[in-house]
Amino acid sequence: MARGLIVAFAVIVLFATAAFGSDPDTINDYCVADLKSSVMFNGYPCKSADMVVTSDFLFTGFRGLGADTNNSLGIGLTPAFASVNYPGLNAQGLGLVRFDYARGGLVPPHTHPRASEVLYVTHGIVFVGFVDSGGKFWSATLTAGDVFLFPRGLVHFQLNVGNGKAMSISTVNGQNPGVQLIASALFGSTPAIRDDVLAKGFGINKTDVQMIKKSFERAM
Amino acid sequence: MARGLIVAFAVIVLFATAAFGSDPDTINDYCVADLKSSVMFNGYPCKSADMVVTSDFLFTGFRGLGADTNNSLGIGLTPAFASVNYPGLNAQGLGLVRFDYARGGLVPPHTHPRASEVLYVTHGIVFVGFVDSGGKFWSATLTAGDVFLFPRGLVHFQLNVGNGKAMSISTVNGQNPGVQLIASALFGSTPAIRDDVLAKGFGINKTDVQMIKKSFERAM
Amino acid sequence: MARGLIVAFAVIVLFATAAFGSDPDTINDYCVADLKSSVMFNGYPCKSADMVVTSDFLFTGFRGLGADTNNSLGIGLTPAFASVNYPGLNAQGLGLVRFDYARGGLVPPHTHPRASEVLYVTHGIVFVGFVDSGGKFWSATLTAGDVFLFPRGLVHFQLNVGNGKAMSISTVNGQNPGVQLIASALFGSTPAIRDDVLAKGFGINKTDVQMIKKSFERAM
Amino acid sequence: MARGLIVAFAVIVLFATAAFGSDPDTINDYCVADLKSSVMFNGYPCKSADMVVTSDFLFTGFRGLGADTNNSLGIGLTPAFASVNYPGLNAQGLGLVRFDYARGGLVPPHTHPRASEVLYVTHGIVFVGFVDSGGKFWSATLTAGDVFLFPRGLVHFQLNVGNGKAMSISTVNGQNPGVQLIASALFGSTPAIRDDVLAKGFGINKTDVQMIKKSFERAM
Amino acid sequence: MARGLIVAFAVIVLFATAAFGSDPDTINDYCVADLKSSVMFNGYPCKSADMVVTSDFLFTGFRGLGADTNNSLGIGLTPAFASVNYPGLNAQGLGLVRFDYARGGLVPPHTHPRASEVLYVTHGIVFVGFVDSGGKFWSATLTAGDVFLFPRGLVHFQLNVGNGKAMSISTVNGQNPGVQLIASALFGSTPAIRDDVLAKGFGINKTDVQMIKKSFERAM
Amino acid sequence: MARGLIVAFAVIVLFATAAFGSDPDTINDYCVADLKSSVMFNGYPCKSADMVVTSDFLFTGFRGLGADTNNSLGIGLTPAFASVNYPGLNAQGLGLVRFDYARGGLVPPHTHPRASEVLYVTHGIVFVGFVDSGGKFWSATLTAGDVFLFPRGLVHFQLNVGNGKAMSISTVNGQNPGVQLIASALFGSTPAIRDDVLAKGFGINKTDVQMIKKSFERAM
Repeated sequence: MARGLIVAFAVIVLFATAAFGSDPDTINDYCVADLKSSVMFNGYPCKSADMVVTSDFLFTGFRGLGADTNNSLGIGLTPAFASVNYPGLNAQGLGLVRFDYARGGLVPPHTHPRASEVLYVTHGIVFVGFVDSGGKFWSATLTAGDVFLFPRGLVHFQLNVGNGKAMSISTVNGQNPGVQLIASALFGSTPAIRDDVLAKGFGINKTDVQMIKKSFERAM
Repeated sequence: MARGLIVAFAVIVLFATAAFGSDPDTINDYCVADLKSSVMFNGYPCKSADMVVTSDFLFTGFRGLGADTNNSLGIGLTPAFASVNYPGLNAQGLGLVRFDYARGGLVPPHTHPRASEVLYVTHGIVFVGFVDSGGKFWSATLTAGDVFLFPRGLVHFQLNVGNGKAMSISTVNGQNPGVQLIASALFGSTPAIRDDVLAKGFGINKTDVQMIKKSFERAM
Repeated sequence: MARGLIVAFAVIVLFATAAFGSDPDTINDYCVADLKSSVMFNGYPCKSADMVVTSDFLFTGFRGLGADTNNSLGIGLTPAFASVNYPGLNAQGLGLVRFDYARGGLVPPHTHPRASEVLYVTHGIVFVGFVDSGGKFWSATLTAGDVFLFPRGLVHFQLNVGNGKAMSISTVNGQNPGVQLIASALFGSTPAIRDDVLAKGFGINKTDVQMIKKSFERAM
Repeated sequence: MARGLIVAFAVIVLFATAAFGSDPDTINDYCVADLKSSVMFNGYPCKSADMVVTSDFLFTGFRGLGADTNNSLGIGLTPAFASVNYPGLNAQGLGLVRFDYARGGLVPPHTHPRASEVLYVTHGIVFVGFVDSGGKFWSATLTAGDVFLFPRGLVHFQLNVGNGKAMSISTVNGQNPGVQLIASALFGSTPAIRDDVLAKGFGINKTDVQMIKKSFERAM
Repeated sequence: MARGLIVAFAVIVLFATAAFGSDPDTINDYCVADLKSSVMFNGYPCKSADMVVTSDFLFTGFRGLGADTNNSLGIGLTPAFASVNYPGLNAQGLGLVRFDYARGGLVPPHTHPRASEVLYVTHGIVFVGFVDSGGKFWSATLTAGDVFLFPRGLVHFQLNVGNGKAMSISTVNGQNPGVQLIASALFGSTPAIRDDVLAKGFGINKTDVQMIKKSFERAM
Repeated sequence: MARGLIVAFAVIVLFATAAFGSDPDTINDYCVADLKSSVMFNGYPCKSADMVVTSDFLFTGFRGLGADTNNSLGIGLTPAFASVNYPGLNAQGLGLVRFDYARGGLVPPHTHPRASEVLYVTHGIVFVGFVDSGGKFWSATLTAGDVFLFPRGLVHFQLNVGNGKAMSISTVNGQNPGVQLIASALFGSTPAIRDDVLAKGFGINKTDVQMIKKSFERAM
């Protein structure tokens, strides 16, 4: 696997470290992000009012075929975030992502530290699930039109279980929800986490840990 | 117009007065609404954990043809709210609505007092717009895949400007955003607002006010 | 009507698009707005501590006769906001407005997208009301000393129904509540909203729409 | 002094321990407090919608002469709080107090742990001040129409310095701001604070401490 | 490993599904949790004021030797949470945990969905680390007196790397932060997550997945 | 007393007026304070990501003997705040303080306007207490390992009642809680508060007021 994962999530990972959301209550009608500002805060500064244009409120990047799914995970990912390509969402407490799934495509287990998510399936059949703090696994097989909730901060995943492609649109109630791909965070971090921590944590031996780490290293 | 408006928005108006959201931060993994509780608070009480079922997190009501658009506004409306039919959204700060538009169908000017909204068009061509506090009108003509932002509390509307049906899904970052249909609120309230207030406010005479009120009365 | 409306609300409308409130919790003892800063954010930057003066916390603009009510609405409006003339309110979650009413003076139906309001009558007799999401109209005739609540985001108005002048002081729990004059937003926006949207929304014909729009155009 | 203090603040002190505000964002149009509920929460439960009456939103208790100022502090205090006499303010993030001052009347140094306050003088001349965290004292002499800010949590006071009566209306941005009368809290608490803590804290000897305590004891 | 993990975290996992925090702003002086209430909300109901006792504000459970570390992880865990044993913390936005570490003891990788954490080492040498959204691993070796931050929602762990026992006290800024033990959530959930999701997500084969799952099953 | 008080609290008082916290929800993984920024806001600007170092998340200032207690209060105070010496806490809603107590050492009555506090005793015997809004005094004698809660904004103090030194660590759920030393704020402010306000407020005569003021003046 691996390289695909890195490729597919590269965009979203980038903004997650570089971006500065502002999910406290909206204070203005709008505060369109000034993405060129050199001052970085808990939220982007606002463009001056006379620089705001209609396209700041409009996002057309979900049109058409969607992102390439030709990677090891079989996933294409198109973000619509204040920090990336939708500056009007700055300070509005919302963000969106389009997922395209090849047959068998998997959005691997991950968390969003700062938002709840509703996933809406537009095409295909998607198996989704999350695990709660008590270790209970909640899941469902969704078809077109279905919506599923991933509560804030809990680990969840999505898997295309249909015979063809699938697509879904997720909306999160935060402009910078963050994303932490669990396996990649633990076995592919820079620098690496000590083998003994992972071995003991997962109940495996260090050789297994090194094997898993290798698969993530190859993807860099 | 009128009766259609009442019919189309009946469901959403009902929950807006009877429901009790809780948009302060999520505190639990989930707090599935106990819709049978006799205690009404700033948010529904939580069902006990052993009563929670998968369908609390899953919403299938957007499948298929959608709500009937055979009314004077040409609009069908399917809510997915904690207080109506999606109890898992309680305390998660999210709600959804599916809009179906007949040709020329109009979601008339309205506000949501307690949420920002992103509208995603799935089919057809929809003209949308909002007015900001400075009286500036922001609008765009959306096709399938496009997203538009309606900032919290500002008056906005949607109009099917294509040759066929249209459909969109809106997500709001509040479990009980509220909805105030402007014309209906002013000219169709119970009891009625004084004619002189409306006449002076809209720069029309009292005869005009009574005429507009009549059209809303017929709809009751 | 019209020109009066524009004149009366000019100040408040200006700051509503240009201002940058910060209603998340107070973080400092005070953060007096640096109104000359070129950085615009979700709230004003703070003046440096050694530049703060007593008059930042004091507002004397409500003294005396109040704003001129010689306009078509019969309303004089004096704001006391962080962004206009009361920089100490920055980040404190509060703002005030003084309303002066000529005989018959009307503050026309409007909403505040981001604050609840309590209105306190100091002189005269004022009829006030708001409409809730269920279309119910709540109203009362206030005399000196009375207080009335306008919940966040709901349309409301004030009318002098006494034989003389009247005056009231409103306090809102937000430093930049925003204001949307309903009739002006819909019939007097720039650019204009399509006639068919307004006609269908209000249950009137396009000739009526154009007539109402004209009255607002004359006021520009 | 003393007994007057207890008398004057009795009402406000009572609700401060027994009441349950809810200053997180408003979630509903309104949630009128059900003051008879046996369930006590972080905010009052809402009355059922069909029990809400206009007087829930209206407060007339500030009419007329105001509370008696015939006490040692020369202060009359009329609260308008969700928990006492204005149930419509429940969950709206607002509260009010009317202060009546006899000549020389003093609202002694106190804090509100959970709200900022704007004070509006309606009659007379009132000297007001607060101390910030750095020990800086900010003060002003206010006349009718003036407004002064007391930032959240900071110690402040009000003194009638005119030749006649005075009156002011304060608005706080919290439904249950709390009030802590500093001298009374330290020297008149139940049970009493150890003499050595107060002596060392105030740089006085224990005899002085006991003398001050006595004056508060006499007031019980 | 495994059974130790379940044993060590049993207490904290239990309250994480059964508890109901309230991290919106404090509204009252205190709202001591009524843990016997049958109404479950977004936060515990408050005990009536006359039932509050000093021990509601005092926690003595961190005295002495600490929890047993005789388990496969070598970790003893003593919570101090509103929902478990410290009812005064209800609605105050705080919680604490004492960790006791045997030599080599590991608090395995986990997240808190709803709080940031500061860890303070009282004895011994503890290696700690977290991974951010960009995959960067931040770590430090702490000795007595040191403090380290784990930002909200990010995966982190603690390992005793000294030659003897160790102890630390963590404070979180939420009354119910939640805890998700990553390995246990993914490989030990009830019901189990599909093998193919875990295999693809971790870049391992299904046999490896089943092996890891087995080690968690044995612990039940 | 006096000079000791000023010396002991100098650090914490300084940052309380100069600092700019941000306790609204965390929006990023981290936003390490750029303490050299010339722009001051409701929270520090973030350092650019490539400037962040491990020591931003690590605080070692609590190691060793602690701050000098050789002053009239017998208190040593070591802050760990975003604005002073722990920039990683910026926007994380947390701060810490270490208190060292000489025998009989007193942290005099004070309030934190913007945070609740949990105090954890590491050595010695400390008597602590707070007064609630109703004038009730809550107190306890703590030994090593004990935790006590001081609710947001309420006046509280700590006194070493053991035969030797004592030490405690406090954590507050705000990055800039503020501190107001009650006696110093009232009797030692700059400029001074009028004698008659303090005399009437404390039920003492003006000579007593001047005596107390003197003790604070000597400390400047």
